[in-house]
Amino acid sequence: MSLPSPIDKLASALCRLPGIGEKSARRIVFFLLAQPEVFTREFSEAVRTLKERLHPCPECGNFTEDDPCPICTDPLRDRKTLCVVETAEDLVCLEQASVFGGVYHVLGGRVSPLDGEDIDVRVLESLKRRIRDLGVKEVIIATNPCVEGDLTYFAVVDALKGTSARLSRLAYGLPVGGSIGYADRVTLHAALEARQKVAETGS
Amino acid sequence: MSLPSPIDKLASALCRLPGIGEKSARRIVFFLLAQPEVFTREFSEAVRTLKERLHPCPECGNFTEDDPCPICTDPLRDRKTLCVVETAEDLVCLEQASVFGGVYHVLGGRVSPLDGEDIDVRVLESLKRRIRDLGVKEVIIATNPCVEGDLTYFAVVDALKGTSARLSRLAYGLPVGGSIGYADRVTLHAALEARQKVAETGS
Repeated sequence: MSLPSPIDKLASALCRLPGIGEKSARRIVFFLLAQPEVFTREFSEAVRTLKERLHPCPECGNFTEDDPCPICTDPLRDRKTLCVVETAEDLVCLEQASVFGGVYHVLGGRVSPLDGEDIDVRVLESLKRRIRDLGVKEVIIATNPCVEGDLTYFAVVDALKGTSARLSRLAYGLPVGGSIGYADRVTLHAALEARQKVAETGS
Repeated sequence: MSLPSPIDKLASALCRLPGIGEKSARRIVFFLLAQPEVFTREFSEAVRTLKERLHPCPECGNFTEDDPCPICTDPLRDRKTLCVVETAEDLVCLEQASVFGGVYHVLGGRVSPLDGEDIDVRVLESLKRRIRDLGVKEVIIATNPCVEGDLTYFAVVDALKGTSARLSRLAYGLPVGGSIGYADRVTLHAALEARQKVAETGS
């Protein structure tokens, strides 16, 4: 049996989204069919206007409605510490964790020779310019903990050669709340390599 | 950090869909931001037109663009066997498995006293009328294998008292490809109760 075309069309579109398979897509379509008209209308509108209303911040590359974005204009943020991330999604993750009070720079790409991906040279140029203009003291390179992330890290380090800012990167180790029993070999190796000295307690 | 309103709005809508949590919603939003405009436009259009273009088949209750639906008008389907399902989604599942060649009747609801849900009396009336009009010989009640499904099954059986058609229901037992080790107590009990006699092989 072929599905009615409106169901089929939407299910196919949903299937292309990350994390949604064929069965989930069908479930979502029938869920939408059971919702009041106002929900599907608002949902459709939210999808339609998403890309129209947002654009990359000319300073950091974060998606924003304003120029520059609220993070770049926030007077309370530390402009001497800059965190380099691969994507705006990574930026949002760090922001929602409330673990960083500096400013960001979104690469909008990564180095992945197998996928033919590379970082836009203009992004690296604007990164260098911002480090100079803001007088950044530390650049934290927060690329993903994988091969492509490592390659991206090295590319950024290479591009920033000669800047006065101190360069650092996120630590590798055991994820908090995880268990050694489930940790993979490479993570265990990294955690051992980066082991930290126990602080001596006063007697 | 509060997310830009277009991102926040779409993520909230996505979170209301079945099987999509906060993180998946965010991932989908950033995936959409990375897609070409044509994809989001078509996706938005598919959501918008979904409910406009579809309506329940006046015969069986399946979602359709035509009146009656392609299953009800298919001359090759067996009109003497009718399968009662809770939702149009269940109908699609059975259809896509290509395991049933008869016609359907969608209840569009289930009996769930705790959720205050019940079957529409008119649906049961139209079911009885169709059984009579089509001269249905067997009604297969394909409600879900759970408490609400059982209650729905009994409600249908009760409503069909006095019809000449033979009533049956889907078998309970071990899911094919599953393992006894992972089967729950109730399923094992059902599989034991409904055990089937081994056919004698000729010598």
